[in-house]
Amino acid sequence: MHFCAIMQVFTKDSLYQIAHKVFLAMGSNDDDAKQAADVLLSADVRGIDSHGVSRLLGYVALWEAGRINMKPNVVVKREHKSTFTIDGDEGLGLVVAPKAMKIAIERAKEYGTGWGAIQNSNHFGIAGYHAMMALPHDMIGMAMTNATPFIPPTHSKQAMLGTNPLAYAFPTDKQKPLVIDLATASVARGKIEIARREGKVIPKGWIVDKHGFTSQNVDELKDGGMLTPLGSLEELGSHKGYALGSLVDVMTGVLSGANYGKWVPPFVSYLPLLPNLPGNGLGHFVGALEIEGFRSTSEFKASMDHWIQSFKSAERIDDSQEIFVPGEKEYITEEERNANGIPLNDKVIEDLEGLSKKFKIQF
Amino acid sequence: MHFCAIMQVFTKDSLYQIAHKVFLAMGSNDDDAKQAADVLLSADVRGIDSHGVSRLLGYVALWEAGRINMKPNVVVKREHKSTFTIDGDEGLGLVVAPKAMKIAIERAKEYGTGWGAIQNSNHFGIAGYHAMMALPHDMIGMAMTNATPFIPPTHSKQAMLGTNPLAYAFPTDKQKPLVIDLATASVARGKIEIARREGKVIPKGWIVDKHGFTSQNVDELKDGGMLTPLGSLEELGSHKGYALGSLVDVMTGVLSGANYGKWVPPFVSYLPLLPNLPGNGLGHFVGALEIEGFRSTSEFKASMDHWIQSFKSAERIDDSQEIFVPGEKEYITEEERNANGIPLNDKVIEDLEGLSKKFKIQF
Repeated sequence: MHFCAIMQVFTKDSLYQIAHKVFLAMGSNDDDAKQAADVLLSADVRGIDSHGVSRLLGYVALWEAGRINMKPNVVVKREHKSTFTIDGDEGLGLVVAPKAMKIAIERAKEYGTGWGAIQNSNHFGIAGYHAMMALPHDMIGMAMTNATPFIPPTHSKQAMLGTNPLAYAFPTDKQKPLVIDLATASVARGKIEIARREGKVIPKGWIVDKHGFTSQNVDELKDGGMLTPLGSLEELGSHKGYALGSLVDVMTGVLSGANYGKWVPPFVSYLPLLPNLPGNGLGHFVGALEIEGFRSTSEFKASMDHWIQSFKSAERIDDSQEIFVPGEKEYITEEERNANGIPLNDKVIEDLEGLSKKFKIQF
Repeated sequence: MHFCAIMQVFTKDSLYQIAHKVFLAMGSNDDDAKQAADVLLSADVRGIDSHGVSRLLGYVALWEAGRINMKPNVVVKREHKSTFTIDGDEGLGLVVAPKAMKIAIERAKEYGTGWGAIQNSNHFGIAGYHAMMALPHDMIGMAMTNATPFIPPTHSKQAMLGTNPLAYAFPTDKQKPLVIDLATASVARGKIEIARREGKVIPKGWIVDKHGFTSQNVDELKDGGMLTPLGSLEELGSHKGYALGSLVDVMTGVLSGANYGKWVPPFVSYLPLLPNLPGNGLGHFVGALEIEGFRSTSEFKASMDHWIQSFKSAERIDDSQEIFVPGEKEYITEEERNANGIPLNDKVIEDLEGLSKKFKIQF
């Protein structure tokens, strides 16, 4: 069995336009709608298709379910020099997180670093976008978020953690910035979806069934199955991925006063919120570190270039297989898609056509 | 074939005494010798046997090779409010890192957070020790270090990264603190050593041979073999472990002006330093975040307890298999070893006996 997705290619601008207009139609002001569209398109351009316009329908569904406030009053509710906590007022994470990151950058200008915990937010798109906001300021940027519970801790069969990504972005001189952006799950859902469409048996370690046992049958995910933490299997160190997911959950959920663990509000609108929520909405944590407070910025950037070059030129296993540094593939995709457009599959196109009809927007 | 290690049990105090006296004999002042012994013993007590007194001989060998300065002049060489960079003057990391952590805690009292990059240092023991120094101050503690190159990046057969651990410690109310302390390798060398002694075939993914290919033969490590990044195999996400190891290398090596990548000075004294070192010594990065700048400390601690309880009581795969939160097993071991002593194997005892003769110290 071979699956062939029908792909059609769109310009970045055309997809930005529909995203912008959908957010406007949902009630955003123009600045917020532009910001949200910008975060989504950064994912599409960088090849992280699961977090781009393919999510638009999901945000709309959450808004229709009354779980997103399109006119949030985002406020700092507590602060102390380099630190602050933000109440996102149930806004789009796509809007709330960049606001927090801007404050973190301002704090870093004043105090060397700036750190924001964010509660009462929603899905914030790709973590890398927010971390990369620090780059033009010669700062290291950092962003984390908790997410829909879908991963059981080691020895458990209950989804207690999301894919809880963390991202760091480092400025460079002539090289592209080093951007580390990874989910603390062993595998992206997108990869599983591709395997499902292609009817493939998936590798041992990608998922577990509802009883917590390893499964290579992708259909288990529709029957209570779950993802695994980075490390995949207990013998390969899945307790480390569980610990990393926990780190992100505590920094984003507990420190901010958001929900955590099994109570994190799911992205899919048809899943109800659990009773007895311990916090407010979903949580993020962002930070900015000014290089100059640690080392001369020009020296740091030159060393980053050297770091990247040394990794790129490390001895290869197979001469034909290039060594990539974190974030490099995304820059390659960005260049390619900026030139040639963004391919979308039939399902996503159908979703966008549906939204264009629903909101009477041209697409 | 079954291997049976001869184990003998020692009190924490007796091991502390020999470590303290060995560091004195190497030339440390009394405060530094006590600090270094305290870091080592914290590993033995917590069950991280690979980083306790079993390392003493290695520190001595490095000192004899002229690679450790036992009377370092540890100074802040650059700073900006919440940030600073320290020159460890080739001192023991066991001494340099706690000094940096104390400054980070002071900065956090003043600015909400404190962050120190450290260059020109050496192996600092367990990362968790340094992170946990923040706990009595109602702060979150963080520590990272780069380490002896022993892990190739994805698609490479050259050791470019160490096991590069990162640790975070979170204060709690009635529960034990949550302590996340993990190497960004897939498996600890200690586990491989146990498999070697027991003559076991190791799981696919733990190591690669000198050509970069997966191997289940533990002897490959003696013939140019290497560890793998967390994730183990490319299909199970080893590029994420590679990215995490890179994150630690850049934060500890590049930001501080220490060495990085393949140039990180190896812990074993018989391995020479590479030519054209790009920095000074080994690098660390430490941080402290005062809870109160984000959220009421009492609320945070109550939520941490609740977080831990909810994970402890998550649904189990098998009723007889408990779910542990990060750091919990170490606290259980600590309680047990404080009561019953610390078991050492014959090889470590022999090393300590050798040191006691060498330095004319009673053991």
